[in-house]
Amino acid sequence: AVNAERLWDSLMEMAKIGPGVAGGNNRQTLTDADAEGRALFQKWCEEAGCSMGVDRIGNMFATRPGTDPDAAPVYVGSHLDTQPTGGKYDGVLGVLGGLELVRTLNDLGVKTKHPIVVTNWTNEEGTRFAPAMLASGVFAGVHSQDWAEDKTDAEGKRFGDELDRIGWRGDEEVGARKDHMHAFFELHIEQGPILETEGRDIGVVTHGQGLSWTQVTVTGKESHTGSTPMPMRKNAGLAMARILEEVETIALSHAPHAVGAAGHIEVHPNSRNVIPGRAIFTVDFRSPDLAVIQDMEAKLAAAARRICDAMGMEVELEKVGGFDPVAFDANCVNAVRDAAERLGYSHMNIISGAGHDACWINRVAPTAMIMCPCVDGLSHNEAEEITKDWARAGADVLLHAVVETAEV
Amino acid sequence: AVNAERLWDSLMEMAKIGPGVAGGNNRQTLTDADAEGRALFQKWCEEAGCSMGVDRIGNMFATRPGTDPDAAPVYVGSHLDTQPTGGKYDGVLGVLGGLELVRTLNDLGVKTKHPIVVTNWTNEEGTRFAPAMLASGVFAGVHSQDWAEDKTDAEGKRFGDELDRIGWRGDEEVGARKDHMHAFFELHIEQGPILETEGRDIGVVTHGQGLSWTQVTVTGKESHTGSTPMPMRKNAGLAMARILEEVETIALSHAPHAVGAAGHIEVHPNSRNVIPGRAIFTVDFRSPDLAVIQDMEAKLAAAARRICDAMGMEVELEKVGGFDPVAFDANCVNAVRDAAERLGYSHMNIISGAGHDACWINRVAPTAMIMCPCVDGLSHNEAEEITKDWARAGADVLLHAVVETAEV
Ligand SMILES: NC(=O)NCCC(=O)O
Ligand SMILES: NC(=O)NCCC(=O)O
Repeated sequence: AVNAERLWDSLMEMAKIGPGVAGGNNRQTLTDADAEGRALFQKWCEEAGCSMGVDRIGNMFATRPGTDPDAAPVYVGSHLDTQPTGGKYDGVLGVLGGLELVRTLNDLGVKTKHPIVVTNWTNEEGTRFAPAMLASGVFAGVHSQDWAEDKTDAEGKRFGDELDRIGWRGDEEVGARKDHMHAFFELHIEQGPILETEGRDIGVVTHGQGLSWTQVTVTGKESHTGSTPMPMRKNAGLAMARILEEVETIALSHAPHAVGAAGHIEVHPNSRNVIPGRAIFTVDFRSPDLAVIQDMEAKLAAAARRICDAMGMEVELEKVGGFDPVAFDANCVNAVRDAAERLGYSHMNIISGAGHDACWINRVAPTAMIMCPCVDGLSHNEAEEITKDWARAGADVLLHAVVETAEV
Repeated sequence: AVNAERLWDSLMEMAKIGPGVAGGNNRQTLTDADAEGRALFQKWCEEAGCSMGVDRIGNMFATRPGTDPDAAPVYVGSHLDTQPTGGKYDGVLGVLGGLELVRTLNDLGVKTKHPIVVTNWTNEEGTRFAPAMLASGVFAGVHSQDWAEDKTDAEGKRFGDELDRIGWRGDEEVGARKDHMHAFFELHIEQGPILETEGRDIGVVTHGQGLSWTQVTVTGKESHTGSTPMPMRKNAGLAMARILEEVETIALSHAPHAVGAAGHIEVHPNSRNVIPGRAIFTVDFRSPDLAVIQDMEAKLAAAARRICDAMGMEVELEKVGGFDPVAFDANCVNAVRDAAERLGYSHMNIISGAGHDACWINRVAPTAMIMCPCVDGLSHNEAEEITKDWARAGADVLLHAVVETAEV
């Protein structure tokens, strides 16, 4: 069994880097805080006897050697970057759970045939640079590296430049390892309420729901809020409001198999006495069913056009992120379920509501995920919380699933 | 008659300071560009033989002496600050129209009994620091100076600190002059379509409509856009969208005697995969009828509470700016109408849709405004445009109304 105290201490130590304003974290990707978090992780990995490799997009790979020099490694891990107002566990639990697994094997003197590699994938959150799961996507061959490096943040800074600036561009070709992976396991908090409501320690993640991000740009006409008569207005903010209501209606029309919301909203010039001449916002639709996602995208486009036509405005829709629903590898999923069963933890099958690096890695290696509950299902909030027992259960199941797969 | 070429050249020269991105200006109050614009205005005033006084809130007063040392001055002017994406004429025409009046009197060797003072009022626009017409409001005794100086911009910078930083805090007590003003005339572009539609050169402004700015803060709950089930969401952005639709409905219920919109909109943490936990926006309601404004405020509060109650969210409403409808001084209004009539310019009575420094100064001195048309009624837009002939007509009427009031 893992050392839950040591895992918890490491989680709390990492949370000191890039503190938030309300007990959580703001350690967004490619910031100075991200660099500091990476350095701490590297130090811990090296202390645990691992050698660290870094690829040209900043993905980190800490290797614990196996006994068979030809055996493909078993990968574990997740991400260390956070939302701007993020929690202490989202991603971090999977990375430090992987480290705890290595430490435990060291304590026990257990050697595995397959090497074990603990990864930290760059820019999973996608807040600063859309889309989410950017660097695992490049690794898996979904995106080109150039495309990823050209992504810019709200201030216009390039991903590639920021990677250089924080000093975490490694020399390994991105994805060079992808044809030599035995499996990948990602431990993650659920970020939703199901496990807590059902009273289960472990979610055996069989599928991940798909995602579609559509950036909508409505162009109206900037003009004075006082002296422009109502019939002459082209209020892009009002058109946006009407589209946001449609987003809700569209998602609810597929309930409970879909969700939808806009988390990112901007109006220009954002002055109290100027009618917004432009509104830009990103609609996030999700469903485990690809056809439902496609239907929601089509309904959004139709609604946005209908609303803006009626108001005499222009609208553009651009897909800025997304992935199809995924089914994880049956053998890896079984390894997770068997481990939970053997260890006596209560468990259930679950579909991941969020996207994860595992969704991309599943394309290049047999992959599965392990979820543990989180309080009130709350995530992407500084108040995100888990219990030490939940962390222990998740890391224990990870340990056992990995050891079985990596063969002692 | 004024020298329209010289006036136009000065307008174009001023527009070089704080250029916008689309042919207009971004010379927001208390920025470096504002300081530069002020310095150019001071230089021009001194070249025209005026002495410059500056008060402790940065209001500028360029005096052309009169022949009677005891006579109270006639004030003219407007503001040099702009919207973030503002035009070249909003405010600037009134200040430089006043300067042109002085230059013309100098050319003609005309002396007036009453001194003439050309003013530049600090922070008329209210974008960077709400409310609008801030420093003329302090001058007129509507706001306290401390209250104004404590206003902060979006980055948290204090008005008072920024005034010191740009070096334009003068030593005159604010409002010291207010009991010794013979009249105030403000020339301004209409910022609406009426004069152009009616084909009139001059708007004789009899009234100004009132304004109410209500900042609305909706508090929902930040959570994950993917893994939070629809029924568990508290989407503050969606509540905002519903309130924005009500703002439109409320304003239209009083058509054509009211307008309403929200120019300022923010959601937090503004991340694509986080359901907004907070939305902050400012509703701008206007009407020439105080009872209508009060009715709209009450309806907004009721609608916001009803919507947020139904969605299980909190809402707070705070009045962050406003003024009652004003009736300008009958004698000053007549002086404007008589001047237009004498000069043979087509004219009509008009109610100002926008707020102006004149609305506050009207409380402490007999005041009137002169409006000239603007192309397509467009203002608070970099594409704001007027013709040289419209500028000439406005400045001519200003000259004649002022000379009549200041007595040769
Ligand atoms: N796990 C997680 O929050 N990932 C970010 C991508 C997403 O929005 O699902
Ligand atoms: N004239 C003008 O745009 N003033 C700003 C105050 C207002 O919004 O009416």
